[in-house]
This record gives sequence, structure tokens and C-alpha cells, in this order.
Amino acid sequence: MIENGNSPSIHTLVSGLNLTYFKASCFTKWYGDFNANFLQISYAARINILSSIKAAGSGHIGTSFSSIECILIARKLLTEWKEDQPKLETVFLSSKGHDAPAIYAAMHAQGDIKDELLFRLRRLNGLPGHPEIDTPGIPTNTGSLGMGISKAKGFVYANRIKKLDSRVIVLLGDGELQEGQIWESLPGAARDNLNEITVIVDANQIQSDTWVSKTSPLGDLKSRVEGSGWKFLECDGNDLDSLTSVINKEQELPTFILAKTIKGAWVNSMMSFSGEGKFYKYHSGSLDDSNYDAAISELLLRMEKNIHPTLKVDAAPDLNMESDQSPKLRPESFVTAWSEILLAKMEQHSEVVVLDADLSFDTGTYLAREKFPERYIQAGIAEQDMVSVAGTLALSGITPIVHSFATFLSMRPTEQVFNNLTERTRIIYCGFLAGLIPAAPGFSHQAVTDVGIFLSLPKIDVIEPSCIGELKASLEFALASRKSTYIRVNSIGNPEISAQIDFKPGVGIRRRLGGEIALIVSGATMLAQADEAAELLSADGVEASIYSYPFLGSKLEKNFLISLEGYSRIVVLENHLPALGNFQAFKEALPSKNVIRIGIDELPKNGRNDEVLAFHKLNAEKLARFAKG
Amino acid sequence: MIENGNSPSIHTLVSGLNLTYFKASCFTKWYGDFNANFLQISYAARINILSSIKAAGSGHIGTSFSSIECILIARKLLTEWKEDQPKLETVFLSSKGHDAPAIYAAMHAQGDIKDELLFRLRRLNGLPGHPEIDTPGIPTNTGSLGMGISKAKGFVYANRIKKLDSRVIVLLGDGELQEGQIWESLPGAARDNLNEITVIVDANQIQSDTWVSKTSPLGDLKSRVEGSGWKFLECDGNDLDSLTSVINKEQELPTFILAKTIKGAWVNSMMSFSGEGKFYKYHSGSLDDSNYDAAISELLLRMEKNIHPTLKVDAAPDLNMESDQSPKLRPESFVTAWSEILLAKMEQHSEVVVLDADLSFDTGTYLAREKFPERYIQAGIAEQDMVSVAGTLALSGITPIVHSFATFLSMRPTEQVFNNLTERTRIIYCGFLAGLIPAAPGFSHQAVTDVGIFLSLPKIDVIEPSCIGELKASLEFALASRKSTYIRVNSIGNPEISAQIDFKPGVGIRRRLGGEIALIVSGATMLAQADEAAELLSADGVEASIYSYPFLGSKLEKNFLISLEGYSRIVVLENHLPALGNFQAFKEALPSKNVIRIGIDELPKNGRNDEVLAFHKLNAEKLARFAKG
Repeated sequence: MIENGNSPSIHTLVSGLNLTYFKASCFTKWYGDFNANFLQISYAARINILSSIKAAGSGHIGTSFSSIECILIARKLLTEWKEDQPKLETVFLSSKGHDAPAIYAAMHAQGDIKDELLFRLRRLNGLPGHPEIDTPGIPTNTGSLGMGISKAKGFVYANRIKKLDSRVIVLLGDGELQEGQIWESLPGAARDNLNEITVIVDANQIQSDTWVSKTSPLGDLKSRVEGSGWKFLECDGNDLDSLTSVINKEQELPTFILAKTIKGAWVNSMMSFSGEGKFYKYHSGSLDDSNYDAAISELLLRMEKNIHPTLKVDAAPDLNMESDQSPKLRPESFVTAWSEILLAKMEQHSEVVVLDADLSFDTGTYLAREKFPERYIQAGIAEQDMVSVAGTLALSGITPIVHSFATFLSMRPTEQVFNNLTERTRIIYCGFLAGLIPAAPGFSHQAVTDVGIFLSLPKIDVIEPSCIGELKASLEFALASRKSTYIRVNSIGNPEISAQIDFKPGVGIRRRLGGEIALIVSGATMLAQADEAAELLSADGVEASIYSYPFLGSKLEKNFLISLEGYSRIVVLENHLPALGNFQAFKEALPSKNVIRIGIDELPKNGRNDEVLAFHKLNAEKLARFAKG
Repeated sequence: MIENGNSPSIHTLVSGLNLTYFKASCFTKWYGDFNANFLQISYAARINILSSIKAAGSGHIGTSFSSIECILIARKLLTEWKEDQPKLETVFLSSKGHDAPAIYAAMHAQGDIKDELLFRLRRLNGLPGHPEIDTPGIPTNTGSLGMGISKAKGFVYANRIKKLDSRVIVLLGDGELQEGQIWESLPGAARDNLNEITVIVDANQIQSDTWVSKTSPLGDLKSRVEGSGWKFLECDGNDLDSLTSVINKEQELPTFILAKTIKGAWVNSMMSFSGEGKFYKYHSGSLDDSNYDAAISELLLRMEKNIHPTLKVDAAPDLNMESDQSPKLRPESFVTAWSEILLAKMEQHSEVVVLDADLSFDTGTYLAREKFPERYIQAGIAEQDMVSVAGTLALSGITPIVHSFATFLSMRPTEQVFNNLTERTRIIYCGFLAGLIPAAPGFSHQAVTDVGIFLSLPKIDVIEPSCIGELKASLEFALASRKSTYIRVNSIGNPEISAQIDFKPGVGIRRRLGGEIALIVSGATMLAQADEAAELLSADGVEASIYSYPFLGSKLEKNFLISLEGYSRIVVLENHLPALGNFQAFKEALPSKNVIRIGIDELPKNGRNDEVLAFHKLNAEKLARFAKG
């Protein structure tokens, strides 16, 4: 039974959506006897996680559910140790960061986050999609994988230098253990006896796309960890007693705990996953209304009846997520289009090999993988390894097409990309999630430095296609080129297919004709905003032309430049930081013209797409106002 | 006894230097009975290594000597296997690459490199300081650590796709095992049963500065490797029988051989190293004439008497390298100056902590380490870990000063630097070996992309000091700044100390006044060439002013711009690729002026400094000619 005063509240969003949640005041009571009430606390926290993700429209349910016990217990223990020893410096940090909804729910349960803020997840000035230090209580920015143990070491070294005692607990994902930095960071901690550190691995066994064991098996972790000089322990990561028995204040060695958890625990439908050729459906993304209601009722039912989590609740309604995450049905998606374009090219070009770093669903390599498994290499979350493998594939006459998110691909294996470029081979790098939107995950995922970085490297073309026609043409261009190419893909794309496009460096593609203003765009995000801005301007009596120019920063052809002579204002839209790109190219090529840049000038904000586009003055309304002059 | 016809030849260089070496024809005979003649082959190869490095003036003796047996035997076995099975694709590659002199000596011994070419080590169009594919027989470019196993995987995958059998042997260093990519690359090879791969670790136990165990211990390698699904074997890596017993054509698992070797084997003086606060003296750099002669006589003596390498040769002359590698005596070195500047600042600023990635000698952190061991963190060859550690140190109120070579610092931990920048803390990154010279190590070490990459990141200043005065001022600026700073250091510096410099963003520092040409420089390399070019011009009746402008790519102040109005030609010298930097800043700020760039436009060449500066048209003569117009 849910006790009096601990009943769930209903939060009604402005949109009219009713969300079930437990107020912080409920937890305050339960924390009075944490151990006795732990089951209720963990069920209630899950309800809050689910509701905050429902309000946000996106977020990682599976990992938030697998890790919530680890987070609740780690934070509670650190609080107790601090109470016992007030001068102790305590830090809890999540390395993977996409368990953010669980972290916020745990912080809320401890009274560190207010009720209202829970429903500002992934909103401008709300709770970031991955943890950021601007939220009080979050010690460091995370979201790019593999950095957590190093970060923990830094905190401990700092405290030692200040002669302060400290205890740091870091939460990792098991898929994250594929990152080299994890293994790079272990031996030094052992050398310096950084016994202040406890690593907890949320070992839910399923990474972004599928089972860890099917992606890139971790081997014998005990040997690998102990061989690096750490203590290795295992426990049931969803169980209070099991977790508290392994997390100790005093440790003789830096300690690495493999906490075996269940992804999606404890909602029946989220816990079952066959993995055979399917994606795990609850990795990222929110639930639709009926699935949300079903999951909430199951959790409330379990809570009310105090049902042990390992038992199935027969009365619980089934979730039906078949359609929600089917890649084919994602609206206006460049990813879906890419999956088909890529497959078609693999059919034509037997020398093409696809490489993927556990983002098959998000970078559209799944059709290629199904059809040509012998020409598909799954690197796991190991971008440096993937890029160096591509290097020698290319030296052997193969054309590797390397996939990841643009932010990871441009910054994690930069030296490996450079090394490949020094070999003058042809490799195609495809970076997804490029630019400002989707804006919910935050700057660890919103690539805005990739253009500058790739254009700082020698012998590589950078292309940002604006429509599916250009996306296809980009791959054709890259396959015909003797150089390497970086294709910068906005994951949320424009479904328009240009029938005829003259796709070559130096020449812009005219998409709208009229007036004295020319808008120069690259990428689907900017094209969509420019289209809308041109309509707004037109309604206002001002006509504007639109050209897409996908060959970022490249030399412009004379005839194209002549065609721009008639405009009084040339406005270049850049969905990245100002370092390099089209603005520089157009300004240099048209020294006597009024060339203006509208683009991202600072770190991208987290939030809903419309909020963030508006904040950065890149939405249609602001573009229209600015373009007019 | 050296047999008839196998006597050493004397090679006389143009400079008049006499070098002892064995011609390829000697090896041809010895290879007739490889096993019986192995001792002679390995001694003779060492003589060739020493002489080629002597001719080059630099190179890695210690590691070439420790690894020569591994290389000779691996290459020989691959050749035999290929003879037995002509369709077998065989690859030998060195991951670390600074064993290049040993690789070339082994290739020469097998007849793959001609006698003359041996003495073109580290010369323009000769044998690169680190292996490059332009040398026939070198399968891939190496020199940046940690990529080798991934590269081996790529070769194997390519052959499997082509349905070809293959065998790949990769040589690693033991210090190199600190790189995360090594550990990232292992599990995938086990998953895919890449039994075609043998890794040999040249475990000479001494890395760049000192013992591996004192730098960052590797832990229990057997556990770590077996835990990753590989077979682990050990052997004596300088012994024929021991090595051949572990390298087999057929393997049941991808195999990792820890080949225990002796750095500097087999020259008495090179094998003894206490390590206590000292640097190993034979890691890099050539020998002076007397030490060269002593080492050659010892090797000849051993060879003649067929003395087993493990035995000390009493009659051998001692080498005396005390002075050669003392950092204080390195001529015109910014490294020496930095070591003192850094120490002084650590004395003043108790919040400063120094981080180093096994380049204490080469980045001048040794004084700081000796004086303030508690504020010195040795990361080992683990740049990503180092940078993330710096991140949380900075969040804790400490000012980390992070050291590495510019190429590694800008490209290996790029995402970690970005992540730190998103936290708006103050971290000082110091990248040494920036720019074209020293030109001998090749493009894995000559940083030319660092300016573009750092300027593509948000919230960081990039400074390239031109003299020791500016070097000191750079650190003072960075310590006073609230932002992070990247200090780009040319390791071969100008000893001049500017008494008074007005060091602030936007303002150039005038170093020579006269004429209608203004040369804008940054960095010691370009300043030295500009100084000389101005003298040449002056002798020719043309006067030129010189300004150093260290704040690369930053906004220029009005008064400084006014002071440039009088010049008819403004020539910006850039010791990096054209992406971003001063040329862009000056051109943009002076749209009506004749602003010209002279800089690096392609991948830097390997070679002697004067050759390479001339090749890239950046030496004084070519600068003078170009600057005149």
C-alpha cells in the first residue's frame, strides 16, 4: 500500500498532458528509513524518471531504470559519510551521462532538485539532456563516453594537493567500457593508490543498439581490471543489500564494481529483449501516451502491492512499442534516407565497407549490416580503433565509410583521421547529429566544432547536404573523389528530394529565386529555416533567393559568383561555430559585396529545438528580421 | 672473426665524416644461413643503425637496438611463410615508428633498401624519421603511438573481404601500452578471431624519459591481455631461439608476445641505467664523434670475437654522454627556458599543477617535477587521461598546465579538451615541437594542424611566442586569464630575451623598423627566418619591418592597425596550415591593404631543417625574394 501522504500527484503540463509523479516531500518521509522504504523509493523514482522524460519528449529510459538503484545508494552513502566526517569531500559523477533523468530523480529524492524543475528536463535553462555543471550539484560535464575515471582522478588529486580527504564514486555504462580512455585511466590510479575512487558499472548488458556481447564483448573484466591494479567486485546492481555490501567508505585499492543490472527494470515489457536483428526499443526516446500510461500503471501496481521487482506482475498492461522506434517511420529523417542510399551504393560498389561505432540505429547502417554482414564492421564504442581500422582498409584498396555522431567523429579520433589523411587514401567519414538540433542532448552531442576541425586537416573535403537529393549526391561525390570526404549530416532532415541538382564544388544550388537578398545555406536545418524565413519575408513584401552550398569553405566558381553580383545582401547561415566554412569562403570571394554571417557564436544551448533555434537567433522569425537588414 | 668479404666498409659523407657500415651484399651471404649467422647479422645491423643515425644527426638508438632482433626475425619469418605460400599476404608494421632506423637496417639486410639510402635517413626525399608509405615496403604511416593493432586489424579485415589469407606482425613499444587505443583495439580482434595478428612488444622497460615502471606501470599484462581474449606469451626479445619459438604461422588466437629486451643492447654503456632522477641518455639523438667511434669499436669487437651479447666486453671503450643530453646545454632551446619559467611560476603560484605525458625532458617539466613532486602528475603516454584529469583539477580551483607535443595535444585528446572548455575553467595547454622544425621526425611530430584545431574550439586563446621574453609573457598572460590558453611552442627557440615587450592581444611587437614591407611573424622559427630575410633584403637595398604577433587569429587593435597603414605590403608568415590564424585576422582587419601569406600549404616534409624550410619556401632566402614582391 502507498502510505498516506505518499500518494502520487498529478502534474499537468501546459500542453494539457497529465503526468504522474511523486513530490520531493514524499521522499523526505521515505528517506527517514531509507532501507525499509527502499523499494518504494526506487519505484517512485522510476515514475518520476518516466514522467520527466515524457515531459521532455526524449531521454534514455532503459539506462535510467537500470541504474537508479546504483545512483540512489551511491548518493545516499556519500551523504552519510559526509555527515560522519563533515570535512570529507564527496563527489558522485556519472561518466556516461545519458542516465541524467535518473540522476535528477535521485537528486530530487534527496531534496536537491525542486518538483517543478523535474518537468523542465531537456528544456532551455532547465535540466540538460546530459549533466552539466550549471545544475547545482552536478560536479562536471559529461555525455561523451569514457572520461569518467580520469575525471574522478582529477578530483582526488586536487583534494590531495589541498590536503583534504575525499571519496569519489563514478558511474559508468558497460558499453562505455569499450572506450580506450577507460583502460588508459586505470593503471595510473593504481600507481598512486587512489583508493578514494569507486567505479560502479551499470552493467545492463545492452548498449545503444543491442547486447554488449553482440557488439564488442568486454572479455574477462575481472582479469582486465585486476591486471590494471584495481580491486574488482561484482554485485546485483538493482539490489539494496547487494550494492551496500560492496560500496565501502574505506578501500585498500581503487575499486571497480560490476553492478549487474537489468535494462528497463522494473517494467515487464522493457526487460525482455531478444536482440536477434532487433534494436532494444527503450534505449532512447520517450513513450507515447498509451505506453506511458501502461508503464506508469505497472509501476504503481508494483508499488502498491510492494511486489518484489524480480517478479513479473501479471496484471500489468503490455507496452507496445513496435512502431515507435522503427527507423523507417521516423519523420523527415536523413537517417532513414541514408540507410537506403548507403545500401544502394553497397550494391553497386563491392569495395565499399561500412564501419559503425554502436550507432547503427542512429546513423542508418542497419540495412547495410543486414544485407552485407561481411562488409560491415562493428567497432563498438571505440572510435579511435574504428578510424585506424578504416585507414588500413583504405590502404588495401577498400573504400571505408565510417559512421558516428559528428561530435565524436571529429574530436575523439582526430589524430587517427589525420594519420589516415597523411596516407592520401580515400575514406568517407559520416558524422550525424551535426549542428544545433536535435537540441535536447546538449553540447556533448550537438556538433558545432566539426567543420572547423575537419577543415583544419589537410586533403579532405567537407560536405553538408541540405536535402535528401544532396545527401545522395554527397555520397556519389565522395565515392568518385580520390580524396577523403567528411559528410556532415543533420540527423533531422528535410524530406524533399531535389530532382535535378548540379552538385559540384564551387557552384551553389538555387532553391528559390527573387529579390535583392541571397540566403546561402548548408544542411537541412538551415534550409528549413531559410525556406520559412523567405516566406515570412515575402509576406512582408521582401523577396529573397536561397542557395544551398554544401561544399563548406571550398573555392567558389566564377559563374556562380557572377550570379550573386545582383544581390545587395548575401547572408550566409552557419549551423556551426564561426571558425571556418562558407562565410569565410563567400566573404573572401566577394570582397566588394555585403556578405553577412548568421550562425552559432557560442556553445549550443540544451533545450527543445524551437527554443534553442530561437535562442541562437537561427529560427525563421529571427533570420527573416536579420536578413532584411 | 669477420669472414672474408664481410668486412665493414667505410662510407664517407660529403661532410667528410667517415662512417662504418656493412653493405647489403654482406647480409645476402649471411642470410644464406640466417640462424647460424644471426649474431653477426644483428651486430652488423646495429652498426648500420648507429651510422645511419650518425649521418642523420638524430634518431632513436636505444629502441632501435632493443628491437632489432624482433624486426629481423619477424621480417624473416614472414618472408619464409610467403615463400611457402605465395598467395599469403604478409605485413610487418611498427606501431611506435621511432624504431625506424632498425626497420630500415632490417630492410637493407634483406636487400629492400640500397646502401646509399641508409645514409639518407631523416633527409629530404630520403628515409623518414618515422616510417611512411612513400618508402617502398612500408605498409602504413606510423609515429603517433597506439594505432598499430587497429591498423593490423584493418589489413586483416581487408584480406578477409578479398578472401585472401594473411599474416600480420605488429611491433609495439612497452611505453606505448599506456595508450588507450591499444586496449580499445584488443577485444574486437578477439571477437572476430583475427588469429592472423601477432603483436610483439619490444619490452625494453624504458620509455622516453625513464623506466616504464616509474612512469606509469603496466600492471599484470598477462591478465589484461588474456582478459581481452588474446593469447599472451613471453620471450627473450633479443634472442633468436626464444623469439622463433613463440612466433608461429598458425595461431589459435590473436597473439600478444611480450618480448623482453634491453634498451641500447648490445653496447655496454647504453645498457646501464639507474633511472634515479636521470633521463635515459640514448632514447633519441645521435652520438658525438668520440662516442660514435667507441660504440662502433665495441660492436666490431663483439662481432669479431663472436661474443655473446649478454656478456660484457671488458675491452670496449666507455661512452661518455653526460653532457650531450643535458637539457641545460641544448642550444637555443625554448625547452630549457620553459623549464625555468615554469619553475619560477610554480614558486609564485601554489595553485599551479604540472601534467606531463612522458615528455619531461622534451617539454621542460623536469625542474618542476624535482622541486614540486606533489604538484607534478605524470600521466604516462595517455594524453586523453591527462587532459580529463586536468579538467577536474581545474574545476577544483587548481590551474593545470598540461604538456605534450603540439601534434599529440591538439589531436589525441581533442574531445577531452573540448569537454573541459565547456566547463569554462582555466587550463593551460603547452604544445611543444610546434611547426615545421625540427623537421627530422616527420609529420606525425611536426604540428601544423594545431592552430586550426584549437582556434576551432570555443573559449580558448592561442598564443605562439617568438622569443623567450614572449614565452614568459605567454605564461603570465595565461595565468592572469580567466579562460584557457594554448601556448604553441617551437622547441628550437630563439635565445633572445626581449627586455620590454607590450604583450597583449591586438597589439604586435615591433622588432625591426624600416621600409614599406611589414613582416608579421609568430614563433621563434619564423622570427629567426624573418630576421635573416630582413638582413638579406637590406643588403639588397630594401628595408622591411618585423612585428611579432603571438595572439594567433585574435582581433587586432585600432592603434596597431593604424601603425600598419604606411606599409605597401604586409606579409604574414605562418608556420602551420592555412586554415586559421594571423593571416585571416590581418586580412580581415586590413581589407584595403595588400596582405599576403607565406606559410605551409601542404603536409610538412621530413628532412634536415634547412632542406625542409627551403622546400616549403620558408627559409630566409625565399622569404626575402617573396616578400619583395
